[in-house]
This record gives sequence, C-alpha cells and structure tokens, in this order.
Amino acid sequence: MIKYPNGKVYIPPKRDLTSENKPVKNIFNAANRGMGLEEDINLSNEYYNNLGLCLIYKRPTPVRIVKCDYSSSRKITEAYFSEKSTTDYNGVYKGRYMDFEAKETESKTSFSYHNIRPQQIIHLKSVIKQNGIAFFIVRMKYYSETYLLKCEDLFAYMELNSRKSLPYSFLKEKGYLIKEGYSPRLEYLSAVDRAFFN
Amino acid sequence: MIKYPNGKVYIPPKRDLTSENKPVKNIFNAANRGMGLEEDINLSNEYYNNLGLCLIYKRPTPVRIVKCDYSSSRKITEAYFSEKSTTDYNGVYKGRYMDFEAKETESKTSFSYHNIRPQQIIHLKSVIKQNGIAFFIVRMKYYSETYLLKCEDLFAYMELNSRKSLPYSFLKEKGYLIKEGYSPRLEYLSAVDRAFFN
Repeated sequence: MIKYPNGKVYIPPKRDLTSENKPVKNIFNAANRGMGLEEDINLSNEYYNNLGLCLIYKRPTPVRIVKCDYSSSRKITEAYFSEKSTTDYNGVYKGRYMDFEAKETESKTSFSYHNIRPQQIIHLKSVIKQNGIAFFIVRMKYYSETYLLKCEDLFAYMELNSRKSLPYSFLKEKGYLIKEGYSPRLEYLSAVDRAFFN
Repeated sequence: MIKYPNGKVYIPPKRDLTSENKPVKNIFNAANRGMGLEEDINLSNEYYNNLGLCLIYKRPTPVRIVKCDYSSSRKITEAYFSEKSTTDYNGVYKGRYMDFEAKETESKTSFSYHNIRPQQIIHLKSVIKQNGIAFFIVRMKYYSETYLLKCEDLFAYMELNSRKSLPYSFLKEKGYLIKEGYSPRLEYLSAVDRAFFN
C-alpha cells in the first residue's frame, strides 16, 4: 500500500478504456488531461533551448518493449506502458538541476493530489535533497491561470493538512503566476528566477 | 547531411536485421553492444540513488506510439523507435546537473566515433554551455578497463584531429579510470569527483 506524506492511501486513477474508436491520444484520461499545458511547455522549452537559456527536455514515456517486427528496423509490435516513477521534465538551468511535473485541473476551488503519484513525490524529495530545483506547474483552467509551485511549499502543506487537494487560495498565495504569451507560450523561467534565484 | 565537429560526415551504423529468430534484445547491434556496461551503470545508479549520493536515471528509449489495444489499458500494438537526440543518463549530483552516455568497444587500439550521433554531441555541448557536467563512460572490453572521459577533452581532440576514432592512448592519458567492484559495480562517482570537483 502506497501512502502520501499526510498518511492518505494512494488509489490509482480509474481509466476509461471502453470505447473502441477513441483516437490514440485520448486513451489515458489522466495523461490526456494535461495535453494543452504539456504542449505549451514543450513549445516554451523549444524556445528556451534554442536561445540557449536552459536545456530542458520532456522525458520519453517509459515503455517495456516485448516484440519487434524483424522485417522493419524500427517497428515495435508489442509493448506496454510502464509506471512512471519520475516526472515529465528535467534538465539544467543556470548550472542547476531542474525537475518538474505539469498538471492542469478544471476545478475552481482546488488542485487534487489524485494525479500525483507517491513515487513522484519520493522522486521530487530526492531532487530537493540533492540541491536540485523541484516544482509543479499547475494550470487552473477555469481561471486561465498557470502557477509555478515549489515542491517545498506543496510538500509542507501536504504534511500539515489531511485534505486530498491543495486549495486555490494556497496556490494564489504561495505559487508564482506564470506569464503567458506567444513566444514563449509560458514564461516559466522568469517564475523559476523569482522562486529559486532571488 | 550531418557532420561531426571535425568535418567528417555522419553515416548511421548499419543494422543486421535479417535473421527472423533473433531474441528481442539482439535486434539492434548498436544498442546491444553497450548491454553489459549499461547494466553495470544501472546497478551502480541504483546503489548510489538508494544511498542518496546522487539521483541519476536512465532515460527511457524514445518510442512513437501509433496503435494501442483498447481492451487492455497498457498494451501498445504498434510503435516505432525514434531517433535519440540526447544521451542515456542524466540527473543531479552535488547540486549540479550531470549528463552522460555509455559506450563499449572490443577494439584494442581505439574508440570509434561511429556510434556517437552528431545530435548527441550538440546536446552535450549545450550541457557544458549550461554549466552542467558532461562525459562519456567508455569501456575498452579487451583491457577490461572503463574510463570516464570529459566531453571537453573528447570534443577538443575531435576538433583538432581528423581521425574517426579516439586512440586508446588518449583515453589512458586524459580519461579517469573507473574502479570496478561488487557494489557499486562501477565507482564512477569517485571518477566524477576527480574529473569535475577537484
């Protein structure tokens, strides 16, 4: 049994896989929920990486490969998604290691811990221990607001409160609002500066 | 056309995919060549990560997923290997970002550039630019020796010499010999200390 720092038991999110005609990218609810934000971050990373401001990549989806097609050099015919034990993004900024996860929610009032896996919390705590930079990018879709939230702040709140979600008011108070624009879509490095380099 | 820093044109390694009965792990010659070393590094990382000495992970193999089996939540039925544009390993050590690639060779005399992709060189140069730690772990199987080679040293040599490989003598002179043992199999962090923290 896996538990959150506040003692709550982790229950994996249910997946809706009944429809046979769903397009591939809709297979996993949990993954799909973050699609718009993910794309914004990927484009911002491309912009930042090209300018040489940082070097951040999305980690490839972990896949266990079982069978390949021997007539083709690159085709895989049987594979399985593995459980992700780390986060979506990592890399280097101003010489420091940076590691973060992106999540978005439709809720008006809070950001649920539901989609944060306990393994990710363990991983992000190790990042902090190694003096790396660890945070979440949380988008509150209802308000069209995207925040950087330091893991230190999130974990401290989680440990002191038995809630299953982080209230929006906490995000507003402790989070760093990320300016959105055209290029980069998300000026998240400036939020990183305010949060970690001040 | 992709070129190495010394102007040599990059020709992707040929793959032998003719036999229909090869086990999965033998499909790709180039990938397979590094299997023993990779396992040693993975086990060493596990050891180091568990002790909290660093946080280094192997990047998952990048795969483009095309079709999934809708009756199972985790099965992929069609996917393709994507070209790797980064390295095998990255993470954080003593607060600094660390990024490296592992290679082994049977040769007695040199380490061929053949399996280093130009994109990987671009990536590792960006790591250096961001003040990260970048290196290769090179195993000379004939001598049962494993070296850490700083990317700065490798790239400087590549740019000054038109050879297609790095001579063993250069590895012995500029590389940092990695002590091998039982646990960790490769004491590569002590070589990192000597190479980057002295």
